[in-house]
Amino acid sequence: MTDSAFAFGLGVGTHNSHGEWLEVFFPAPLLHPPAEVAAAAADCDSGKALDGPALRALKDALDAAGATEQAAIAAQFAATGQPVVAVLLTADVAPENVPEGYLKLHLLSHRLVPPHGTNLDGLFGVLPNVAWTSEGAIDINELPARQLAARLRGETLEVSCVDKFPKMTNYVVPKGVRIAHTARVRLGAHLGEGTTVMHEGFVNFNAGTDGPGMIEGRISAGVRIGAGSDLGGGCSTIGTLSGGGNIVISIGRECLIGANGGIGIPLGDRCTVEAGLFITAGTKVTMLDADGNAVETVKARELAGKSDMLFRRNSGTGTVECLTNRSAVELNEELHAHN
Amino acid sequence: MTDSAFAFGLGVGTHNSHGEWLEVFFPAPLLHPPAEVAAAAADCDSGKALDGPALRALKDALDAAGATEQAAIAAQFAATGQPVVAVLLTADVAPENVPEGYLKLHLLSHRLVPPHGTNLDGLFGVLPNVAWTSEGAIDINELPARQLAARLRGETLEVSCVDKFPKMTNYVVPKGVRIAHTARVRLGAHLGEGTTVMHEGFVNFNAGTDGPGMIEGRISAGVRIGAGSDLGGGCSTIGTLSGGGNIVISIGRECLIGANGGIGIPLGDRCTVEAGLFITAGTKVTMLDADGNAVETVKARELAGKSDMLFRRNSGTGTVECLTNRSAVELNEELHAHN
Amino acid sequence: MTDSAFAFGLGVGTHNSHGEWLEVFFPAPLLHPPAEVAAAAADCDSGKALDGPALRALKDALDAAGATEQAAIAAQFAATGQPVVAVLLTADVAPENVPEGYLKLHLLSHRLVPPHGTNLDGLFGVLPNVAWTSEGAIDINELPARQLAARLRGETLEVSCVDKFPKMTNYVVPKGVRIAHTARVRLGAHLGEGTTVMHEGFVNFNAGTDGPGMIEGRISAGVRIGAGSDLGGGCSTIGTLSGGGNIVISIGRECLIGANGGIGIPLGDRCTVEAGLFITAGTKVTMLDADGNAVETVKARELAGKSDMLFRRNSGTGTVECLTNRSAVELNEELHAHN
Repeated sequence: MTDSAFAFGLGVGTHNSHGEWLEVFFPAPLLHPPAEVAAAAADCDSGKALDGPALRALKDALDAAGATEQAAIAAQFAATGQPVVAVLLTADVAPENVPEGYLKLHLLSHRLVPPHGTNLDGLFGVLPNVAWTSEGAIDINELPARQLAARLRGETLEVSCVDKFPKMTNYVVPKGVRIAHTARVRLGAHLGEGTTVMHEGFVNFNAGTDGPGMIEGRISAGVRIGAGSDLGGGCSTIGTLSGGGNIVISIGRECLIGANGGIGIPLGDRCTVEAGLFITAGTKVTMLDADGNAVETVKARELAGKSDMLFRRNSGTGTVECLTNRSAVELNEELHAHN
Repeated sequence: MTDSAFAFGLGVGTHNSHGEWLEVFFPAPLLHPPAEVAAAAADCDSGKALDGPALRALKDALDAAGATEQAAIAAQFAATGQPVVAVLLTADVAPENVPEGYLKLHLLSHRLVPPHGTNLDGLFGVLPNVAWTSEGAIDINELPARQLAARLRGETLEVSCVDKFPKMTNYVVPKGVRIAHTARVRLGAHLGEGTTVMHEGFVNFNAGTDGPGMIEGRISAGVRIGAGSDLGGGCSTIGTLSGGGNIVISIGRECLIGANGGIGIPLGDRCTVEAGLFITAGTKVTMLDADGNAVETVKARELAGKSDMLFRRNSGTGTVECLTNRSAVELNEELHAHN
Repeated sequence: MTDSAFAFGLGVGTHNSHGEWLEVFFPAPLLHPPAEVAAAAADCDSGKALDGPALRALKDALDAAGATEQAAIAAQFAATGQPVVAVLLTADVAPENVPEGYLKLHLLSHRLVPPHGTNLDGLFGVLPNVAWTSEGAIDINELPARQLAARLRGETLEVSCVDKFPKMTNYVVPKGVRIAHTARVRLGAHLGEGTTVMHEGFVNFNAGTDGPGMIEGRISAGVRIGAGSDLGGGCSTIGTLSGGGNIVISIGRECLIGANGGIGIPLGDRCTVEAGLFITAGTKVTMLDADGNAVETVKARELAGKSDMLFRRNSGTGTVECLTNRSAVELNEELHAHN
């Protein structure tokens, strides 16, 4: 048997009053589902809610295919009044509707694909802007009436997010992570095992960590952080090289970006950026030799992806300097203690 | 017919156990209501909840005045057990009680007035400190008993805010905005159409944007951001000039404050502050000519309100420099891509 | 009568499906309880839920001891189906189980002990990682089934935090504080009366303020801020001295750390750090005399704990400088205005 498709998922979601999808929750998405599962779902329409007979037929087909976990979900779905959907992506192409977009975001957050591991072209256009509330997802246009109705009942409709992307933890909490304040992690974030995202940390979609790591800074869309690297409180990662087009920012293994610092270039392994220092692609950096003598001055973008660099601003002269081959281990250990 | 008053609103709110107002929600506030509406509401007391007969009389008067939307709200209010109130502000004077204060905050967030567009003198003294919870607004003094009661029922009373100002989105979500994390925008914020407030963005009351704009930094009380301007992640705007008294900070059109940067002076149009650089009013800035040569050194406060400035800290010498007339368009376009 | 024990508390909490504690709420913890109370609770097991007869016996014993408030809580607990526990800590030793750990965190947030005022050794190992949700505390392993069940009912299980520490305000809101966004203050934080924690502020456990103060920056674990000191927006406090082992960071009275600044050394009273400047222990600081002339250069760690210092980075030369004996009062007053 060979894998026959890119991904599959059974989802339960929310419609607005016009029957349009606002969001979909996939409890157990599959990457590269077995051929039998793909065959069982071959006739499903990713944009349309399944009716009762179609859902029962799919359940039986999944059972026949030996996909007991998926069949069990289908059986549970039969008992709900919420709209349910089956999405089979035969290939990793751009998402065409809300269920497809949400399935892809789930693949990332379930760690089935890494950041940049699935085609998200056009995702912003596919996803609607939604009010995420204590009564679930609500269409923006239907919100005022719902707010007033709640008030008249003596309740408050809590609106926690108005965005195309919901918080990840309302869909999946991957194993072995802590997320001190979940509003800071979007669905589509990829958090490796052993990742702690503190209150000031942030992780956008299609971005994340390999884990383990202590994240107290911001991981912008598309940025990937290697194992053992720490982001200090409030530090920033910029999504693309300044003036350099669409170069992807990443940070390698065992790096440390100090509190309130930031980077606009990708870093290799064991790099350190001093607290409070922002290295943009255009920063002129003075390279020091082992004796601390200036050797040359380069633009930071020329250092993109190199390892074993330590960046600091000389507190006497104001010069941004780079030392190489210095161990960042001590500073990393220190930061780990600050949780 | 001429406008006869400053503002009008029908509100439904919360009392503490002593019958004192904690907060009021106005579903459809009016700026400069028609004279007939003002006449219909002329006898209402802004501090007192309406009883049934008074509410019905007001509903009839609004109907007679042709104010069908307001009359419909009054009709809906008749069916609730919550305290309701009618607030008519004949002139834009300082708020005298909770309903008046809340009506003014609604005017800002409904975009009926811009920041500094209504008199908020004494507002802190008028508004009580409230516990905002999953059971609505609760008097701070009544909170411990409510928390214990919830626990004994096997529930948790979620206390999301302890403050004089609630989050805006529980009162109004203006058209055409995204707010990734709503706890960061206070009622009384003014978000222009096309504004996106990302997770690290913040908007205080009596402050905001003309829109469009990408807000990933903090807009302090009183600060106004012009169309097309972006605040980078974690950047700061300070409310008044250091040593300069009560000068209002604002940022003009098409400006960019880089991530983790900050300003303590107002800026004109098309200004850029480099990521990580904080310009306070007292910063000595070296002005460069078109060839990059130093021309003079001035205190940043002398540059207040000027356009077409780019601020950076020279990464070789540590000198804070200002280039003029350089287009900020490229950097702006880059930031727009980081959502 | 002499005090006979370190602390006592009656708590109501949450078990997972195996009967293991996830968290405990103590409505009225006692430091140094009267000997009679300790005697009444002497047989209680801090790790085990009380059954009905044991709870009634404890209630009677507390009544007999004259501890009417505690007896009343015990009486209320008798009516709940939730697990309840009595914790008597005879001495201030390391917490051995979840109820003991939570009682100690309550002591801090109820202001019964200051930061570092109780032994928290091994606390991370004692506390489980918990999903904090709209249905209360849930075991991480039981979360997926609960999320799916909620969805099938047409509800969303809101997961607001995945962490060993919950937010403080769901347990206690001490008198005389405002906390604009409560997710930023962990249980175990100590907020002195008159403290305002703004949206960008953060307070870890075993850390906090003496009050009053305006906190718009981050108070790391173990850090204590003196009366009248302000932390500007987004500023950082590092938990230990860089390279200096376990030296505790603190800030004295009437200090100001500017927005986006930071410190890695303890400060005495009336110190100011300019907005955007990060002072780490290894920063070389040029000391200026009253005339602004450089006197000497020292590592910042040598200045640890001193008072009346103002740190700035010279905007002409990039040198980090320290002026002494300058009043920080003006700047403090300015910051106070930014709420």
